[in-house]
Amino acid sequence: MARWQPNASQRLVAAALDLFAERGYENTTVIDIAQRAGLTKSTFFRHFPDKREVLFGRDTMTALLADGIAAAPPAATPLEAVANALDAIGREAFTPDRREIIARRRAVIDSHPELQEREALKGLALTAAVTAALRRRGVPDLTARVAAELGALAMKIAFERWSDTANGDDFGELARRTLRDLREAGASC
Amino acid sequence: MARWQPNASQRLVAAALDLFAERGYENTTVIDIAQRAGLTKSTFFRHFPDKREVLFGRDTMTALLADGIAAAPPAATPLEAVANALDAIGREAFTPDRREIIARRRAVIDSHPELQEREALKGLALTAAVTAALRRRGVPDLTARVAAELGALAMKIAFERWSDTANGDDFGELARRTLRDLREAGASC
Repeated sequence: MARWQPNASQRLVAAALDLFAERGYENTTVIDIAQRAGLTKSTFFRHFPDKREVLFGRDTMTALLADGIAAAPPAATPLEAVANALDAIGREAFTPDRREIIARRRAVIDSHPELQEREALKGLALTAAVTAALRRRGVPDLTARVAAELGALAMKIAFERWSDTANGDDFGELARRTLRDLREAGASC
Repeated sequence: MARWQPNASQRLVAAALDLFAERGYENTTVIDIAQRAGLTKSTFFRHFPDKREVLFGRDTMTALLADGIAAAPPAATPLEAVANALDAIGREAFTPDRREIIARRRAVIDSHPELQEREALKGLALTAAVTAALRRRGVPDLTARVAAELGALAMKIAFERWSDTANGDDFGELARRTLRDLREAGASC
């Protein structure tokens, strides 16, 4: 087997999700996943430290959000900068062709408390990264923290709507709309 | 040894925190904790299912927050209801005599990723409980979600300030002030 495998990482994720659905997360081993993907165990470990990390993997979200905020026009308000970052997520991560695999990943996490715990902590790290990226634009600390929380909530709600496969909307557009709704809701708190 | 032990739960928590500080969380067993508290292993297991739960224990926060929101005057805005709940936390949980033990618990959690994960998931559950309590007052869904996130953020920031032992302020008062600041910060997002 060649040392380099095209799309090995994606194939491992797809194989893992198939197996988790067929026999359960607990009953699937790293060897099972590698075999199903037609790869070796050592290829698996070149991409992921353990089984759990197949679901979390390299953290591309943090970089996408931080870069999206940095790339917003200088005159953008904090929430406009956040919306710019959510657009980037829609372009690079939550794309239509990945909708199904992302929904399957979500289902595995939702049915395992220990995976939910990991996901919850990753969520906090994401919000902290957004807060830091806003501060680097000169946004005052408390404003940055509120904008980051509103962004996290918009991302969560928009994700729920986007995951519904009957919904053909673009993630970035859904997120922008949600962020606007949340801003209005916040004004009536 | 008598079957009923006064304050057994509190004694176990104090003993556990002492041992975690002395020899580390990993190197402390349930038996060590029970012995240090002058109690038996079976008394430990009557109070906690495992070592990790000594740090999380019975979830009194959720009930305090939900009850505090329900008890707010009918005319209270969503954020006033949240402030009422944070006052309850200040009266019943984050009291001056518990400041030290709470800070020590915090330090143990902060230095263990697996405990941080548990804490993060508990935080999400707390926010969901606050959202639900607000909805039961007739607050629209999105407004309830935003108010709950602002409440969670106020609780976190106020907790950081309150934990600083040089700060003699009452938790409820700190939280109210923080919530007001966050509301203003939100308006400038």
